[in-house]
Order: sequence, then C-alpha cells, then structure tokens
Amino acid sequence: MSFPDWTVEEFRRHGYAAIDWICDYLERVEELPVVPKVAPGDLRALLPERAPEEAEPFEEILADLDRVVLPGITHWQHPGWFAYFPTGASPPSILGDLVSSGLGVVGFLWASSPAATELEAHVMDWLVDLLGLPQGWKTTDRGGGVIQVSASDATHLAFVVARHRRRDVAAVEDMVVYASEEAHSSVAKGARVAGFTHVRWIPVDDRFALVPTALEEAIGEDLAAGRTPVAVVSTVGTTGTTAVDPVRAVGELARRHGLWHHVDAAYAGTAMICPEFRGHQDGLELADSYVFNPHKWMLTNFDCSAFWVADRAPLIEAMSILPPYLRNRASESGEVIDYRDWQVPLGRRFRALKLWFVLRAYGAAGIRAMVRHHVELARGLAERLDADPRFTLVAPTPFALVTFRHVGGDAPTEALAAALDDTGEVHVTPSRDAEGAFIRVAIGQRTTRARHVDRLWELVDALAEPVR
Amino acid sequence: MSFPDWTVEEFRRHGYAAIDWICDYLERVEELPVVPKVAPGDLRALLPERAPEEAEPFEEILADLDRVVLPGITHWQHPGWFAYFPTGASPPSILGDLVSSGLGVVGFLWASSPAATELEAHVMDWLVDLLGLPQGWKTTDRGGGVIQVSASDATHLAFVVARHRRRDVAAVEDMVVYASEEAHSSVAKGARVAGFTHVRWIPVDDRFALVPTALEEAIGEDLAAGRTPVAVVSTVGTTGTTAVDPVRAVGELARRHGLWHHVDAAYAGTAMICPEFRGHQDGLELADSYVFNPHKWMLTNFDCSAFWVADRAPLIEAMSILPPYLRNRASESGEVIDYRDWQVPLGRRFRALKLWFVLRAYGAAGIRAMVRHHVELARGLAERLDADPRFTLVAPTPFALVTFRHVGGDAPTEALAAALDDTGEVHVTPSRDAEGAFIRVAIGQRTTRARHVDRLWELVDALAEPVR
Repeated sequence: MSFPDWTVEEFRRHGYAAIDWICDYLERVEELPVVPKVAPGDLRALLPERAPEEAEPFEEILADLDRVVLPGITHWQHPGWFAYFPTGASPPSILGDLVSSGLGVVGFLWASSPAATELEAHVMDWLVDLLGLPQGWKTTDRGGGVIQVSASDATHLAFVVARHRRRDVAAVEDMVVYASEEAHSSVAKGARVAGFTHVRWIPVDDRFALVPTALEEAIGEDLAAGRTPVAVVSTVGTTGTTAVDPVRAVGELARRHGLWHHVDAAYAGTAMICPEFRGHQDGLELADSYVFNPHKWMLTNFDCSAFWVADRAPLIEAMSILPPYLRNRASESGEVIDYRDWQVPLGRRFRALKLWFVLRAYGAAGIRAMVRHHVELARGLAERLDADPRFTLVAPTPFALVTFRHVGGDAPTEALAAALDDTGEVHVTPSRDAEGAFIRVAIGQRTTRARHVDRLWELVDALAEPVR
Repeated sequence: MSFPDWTVEEFRRHGYAAIDWICDYLERVEELPVVPKVAPGDLRALLPERAPEEAEPFEEILADLDRVVLPGITHWQHPGWFAYFPTGASPPSILGDLVSSGLGVVGFLWASSPAATELEAHVMDWLVDLLGLPQGWKTTDRGGGVIQVSASDATHLAFVVARHRRRDVAAVEDMVVYASEEAHSSVAKGARVAGFTHVRWIPVDDRFALVPTALEEAIGEDLAAGRTPVAVVSTVGTTGTTAVDPVRAVGELARRHGLWHHVDAAYAGTAMICPEFRGHQDGLELADSYVFNPHKWMLTNFDCSAFWVADRAPLIEAMSILPPYLRNRASESGEVIDYRDWQVPLGRRFRALKLWFVLRAYGAAGIRAMVRHHVELARGLAERLDADPRFTLVAPTPFALVTFRHVGGDAPTEALAAALDDTGEVHVTPSRDAEGAFIRVAIGQRTTRARHVDRLWELVDALAEPVR
C-alpha cells in the first residue's frame, strides 16, 4: 500500500508551465487594471463549497489561476503601482525563493541545516558594509543580523527584549515606550502585543520629524510619576511622508536614560546602499536594534525583513528556551548561531537564498542605480506638482515618496485619488495629516520607469479640478 | 537613466534552469548523506568577504548552489528523514508558492488583494470540513481560520488574546497559564514573549497525557493565592511522544474557570483528515483556538500554519490598529476580512495558493492515503522494536512517531542514535524523558516508503548493542 504522487518528470513539466505562467503574467500585467473591480464574495462564489475528494490535473489548477484568482488580484507588480510602498518581487528573488522551497529545510538550529544559518549570517554581514551600518553589528563581532518575517515582527521583538531586560525593575504596566506621532502602526501594535499600556506619541516638527526636546520632556514626566521608560523607536523614512527622525539626538537621550533604542528604517533602509543618503541615519552607533525590509525596495520578495542588534546577548537571553529534543553538540559548543533564539517562532524558511541571489544578480551597483533612478523620478514629479498652482507638497521628498494635496482641500484631493485609481492605470494611497487629506505616490516598483511617472503626471494634470 | 534588469525571456530561461536544479536535487537526494559533515564556518569560508559590486551571471549563482550550499544542507527532503517531524515540500506546494512569489501581492487588507484574502478564507473553511473541526469555526460563521507563519506564532497569538481579554481584571504578572509538562517549547516561549511569569507545567500520566485532576488542583491553588488563571493549552500529538491530552476534560475545566483553551495539534492535525483519528480530539467544541501545521505532514512547504478561533471577535479586538493609510471602504463596510487584524505582523504572503494547490493536486483521498501509509509503516516498525528484547517502546504510536530506547539505558541508546546518523542513510532525533535517553523516529517525509523503513530497521538491528 502506498499513495500516488507526481514523478520528478511531471514536476519538471508542471514547473516549466508555472514559470511560463509567471512570465506571461509579468508581460501582460501592465495591461491589467491595477485595482480589480470585484465585490466581496466574488472569488468565493467561483469555488466549490468542498475540497475535491480526488486529485485534479495540474493543467486545471493552472487554468483556474486565470479564471478564479487573477480577477481578484491587486497588482502590486504593475509599473503603475504607487500605493503604500512597493514590494519587491524581482526574478532573481523569485528563483532564490523557489530553490528554498525545493530544498525544504528548516534552519532553526545551525545543526538543522548549517548552510541556511551560515549563508544568512554572511549576507547580513555583507549588508552591514553595503549600507554603512556600524561594524560592531556583524555576526563576527558582538551584534548580528537575522531575517525576520516583517518589520512589525522586528519591532515587536525589540520591545519584548526591552521589556525582558528590565523585568526585575518594573512591572510591564509601569513601563513606558516612546515613538513619534508619525511612527508606523506596527509600533502601536507591537507595543500592545508586548503588553505595554503606556505608549507616548511624541510630537513632530513641520517636517514630520520627532522633536527631541518633547521626548526628553515626556521621559522626565514619566520618571517623575514613578514609571519606567524602557524603549524608544526612531523612524528613518516614515510611512506617511518618509520623514526622518533625528537618530543621534534620540540615541543620546536613550543612552542617558537607559532606554532600548530601536530604529525603524523599513522602507528607507534600502537607500543607504547609496552613501549620499546615509546622513539621514547619522547616529546609528547609538542604536540597539535596526530593521529594514529588503522586501520593500530591495528587489526581494516578501518575506524578508533584515533585523540587527548591536549586542546579541540580551536578544538571546530573552528568546532562548532549551528542550531536550533541540539540544545538540554544535549548539552546546557555543561556536554556532542558532537562529531559533533570535526570533519568536521556532521554524524558519531558508530566506537568505533569495537575498543572496538578489545581491549577486544585480550587484551593489545595480541596486544603487535602481535607488537613484526611483529617487530622481520622484523628485521630478515633486517639482512638477510644486510648480502647479493647484497642488501643495505635504512634505519633502528625501527618498522616492511624493506627498501632495489639492489646494482646494479634502474634497478635490480625495476626488483626485479616486479618479486616478479609477483609470486602472495607476494606484495611489490617500492618507491624512492634521491639515486633512493628501495623496501618497510611492515610486519604487521594479519595472516603474520614466514613462510610467510621466503618465501618472498626465493623469494628475487631466483629472485634478482647477483652482476655484 | 535607468538600471539593468533581466528580460522576461531571461527569467524564463533561468526559471527553467532553477526547476531543473530542483528536479535534479530531488532525484539524487537519496544518495546524499542526510546530515552533512561540516564544521562551523565551513560555508562562510567559501564566500567572498564582501558582496559583489557588479551583477553576476545566473549560471554562476546556480553553480554555487552545488559548490557552496549543498555541502552544508541537512536534507529534510531525504526519504531517510526520521528526525524532529517532517516538513512538507511537495511539488504542487512548491509551485503554489512559486506562483505566490510571482504575483508578489501583500494581502494585509481585503482591498490590498481580494483574491488572497478570499482564497485563504475559503481553503481554511474547506479544512474545517476535511478535518472534522466544529462548523462554527468557519469564516462564514462566527469563528474563522487564518494562516500563520508557525505554530509558535499561533500559540503566542492565543496567549496575547487571552491576556488582552482579561487586562481589566488583573496585571499580567498575576495571570497564570497552564500546559502539560510535555507541551512543546513554543508554549514556554510564547508565554514568556507574551509577558506571563506564571506558567504551570501540569503532570502527565504514564502515556504522557495531561492529568485533568492535576490541572484542576493547580487552578484551585492559583485562585486561592489571588492569581488569575487565563489560558490553558492542550496538545494533540506532543513533540516528545505524540501523546494526546484529554481535550474534553481540559475544555470543561477551562469553561468552568473562564480560561482561553488553545489546542496545539501542530503535527497530528493532519491525521484528522482520516475520521478514524478524530477520537483523539474529542471535545473540540470546548476549544477557543486550534493550530495545526500543513507544513509538517500535509505536503505543504514552510511556512503554512493553520490557526482557527471559535469566535473571531476577541482576536480582532486584541489585534486591530487603524491608521489612516490603511482605511478603505471595503474594511469599513464590515463585509470583508482584513487579515492584518488576525496576526501580529502587518504584511503577509499569499500562502493560501500553495494549500489550494496541494488540496487539489492530491485530493482529500490522496492525503488520507498518505497518512494511513505512514501510520502503517510506523506501527510496523513499533511492532518490530517491541518484539526485540533489546528495545522498549517509550510510548504508544497513535500516529506515525515511534519512540524507543535500548534496555541497557542511556549509553547504548545514545550510541545507537549516533551510529544511525553516522551511516548517512537516516537521521533520527535523540530525546530524553524522566527515565533517560530515547530515540524518536518520525515517519512522514513525502517520499518515505516501506523500503526506507525496512532499511532503518536493518540498521537499528545491526547497530544496536546486544543485551548484556
């Protein structure tokens, strides 16, 4: 008795077909509407109520990608993708991830697949040099890098380590964490998940950057009230406007008061491969942890969030649990990294492969050229908007996000965002600040070139109401 | 100005080459030693100290898989894999994951890719029927399923929801959570990450199952001491011996005392596709959440951990954070699922595709046949061991894990485990219980057939010391 399975030759044939399907998709995605016109339940109505009892041919499954799935896809890989932030899915990263799936190893221990651990440590060390991060963050020094699922996970992890480190000093209900009003929602969520009830949102200046004197004041108030400040998050490139917090000033305050200083460069971290952007993260030697997402702008498909600590000891101290079935000689020698102790989950994919493929297939020079190209396109768009009396820029464009609003206020701004999406050619994200609605245009999809940004401008120009 | 990238035709050609590499790997993996003979640092020594400045040809990258990576791989996909638990990496799941990478969508909101959300909800509802789970757990009812990265994440999430639900009643330092002494390390870790300081490890009986009267006693002691019991974990198929906790008895105690009851069926959940195993999880209607890993025994590659809640309201209440750039009409209508509110991270892969591919490519009948085949092989091995005076079985074999020790104690047991691994043909996991060392043999790798288990038995028979 046994059970039926594909032969290797069937796998090869179907594998080629899947590659062909993706190539075909990438060739035609530009012709598809970026945002699908579907209503809740449309896809489910196309599916049988019960799972199939008998095996189905792969040809039918593949055909259903076109019939069932594609009509409900929001096309993040469309060159007219200007919404949220981009998510990388370059061909080399897709193939790196494919090989990872094929090897099917789970590298929670060095011993459970040494290559998975060592390649990860190595490419994370490569990135320290590529991005100009502090040398002490290398795995060969006292810090170290590890790939997490997302920046949310990394920020949550930083909070848990900060909490664990001070557990003998205060109850979590008396601890306080800080970030700017413009910090990403993952900071609020990570703090809540980690059990913090006191989160202080520090005011920002007119460029949306955290005001250090306001942070200092908040810390002073909490200390006076008998609470225990434990962590602060600086953001380099906020989600709303890519604002840059003063990392050095925050770091100095953190050192003075014994706070864990986590830097969230989820989006903007990729830009640091170009030395001209590194001034935005001056003071990193005063950070305790740092995260950026290669799966945003560095051509690597989700999930791949790069997280470093300046000192790995408190991270491992907070995360290590040692049951008998995970003990082994290599771990006990202390000579190896066991990445299970660097993250919340036990299991983990071999994600370093796709990052290795990307760094080699593009080279540092190729990634730098991409960053500079997108930043140049963004600044060109910002100049056009700034020169048109109908629009006001909301914030500077230090990287490749352009933020603007219609001078007529919420109604014409929101109408423009909706009209742009309705063309099917582009997708933007409406957002809000204290002054009201604005539009975010994030340039960074791999295939976005000058002609796509020119077309976006044509649409903005044609669809925006005149000044009344 | 732009930047160089692969053409679609280059992607196709390299994609075929990557598929060929995987096919070649699967054809020869049985000839490779399961556990690599490498020392710490061997792989890193083969890599350049710095990332390449210029782009490298894909052919070189692929060649380095053989030169650099393979020598350090522990072959989880080897048919002689009997260590830990298996991890699924079937051809259909690999291709489902490949298509997910190619589409490159991030379905944190329904609106950010409706197909990703609806297919996930749909296949999770399919699994409710396939596994005989309570009907109320469907997304179309008041519960719902969601794919998490790992069972560790799911268990941590259950703890966070349990904590959040009682946050107005007690401080986390006064809350208590319970699980058996045999619960997985992820229970200890999840509890610690969620901030619990009181974790009670409940004694087990001679079949390694939680003793309900001991649980009741512990709850009573904590209540008497003024603490607040908030959650209990039952395990269906422990990692050590696949022991089965009495789900109904634990559930009744949980109901009586207002505890969140989380069921960890990470490994054994797959078996429930066969009705004859469902008696092991009798009482599930008294559970609040449940997790099993299709990425263990259900032919699906990591990561794919299936998590259900009986009532989605407290989960969403604990996890929801709503910044302006994530607001949209569909979410505000309440007609859709936004999976960002069902997990700790914001971003997420389109993981439902691979599960959909697997369920269709094998059919429920195919998966049932696989489960029964592996269980039959495991019971056959257990009978052989039981009949040999050199060995004692440590625990029953309700699923496909066999646990045994040499009657001579730790030394001959540990020597046998090491000798088996040294053959390169098989890999087992040594473990320990109160009586000392034992060996775990987990049968469940997709390509494991009778001849591989026969060979394992030959090796055990040849390598074990005689009784003294």
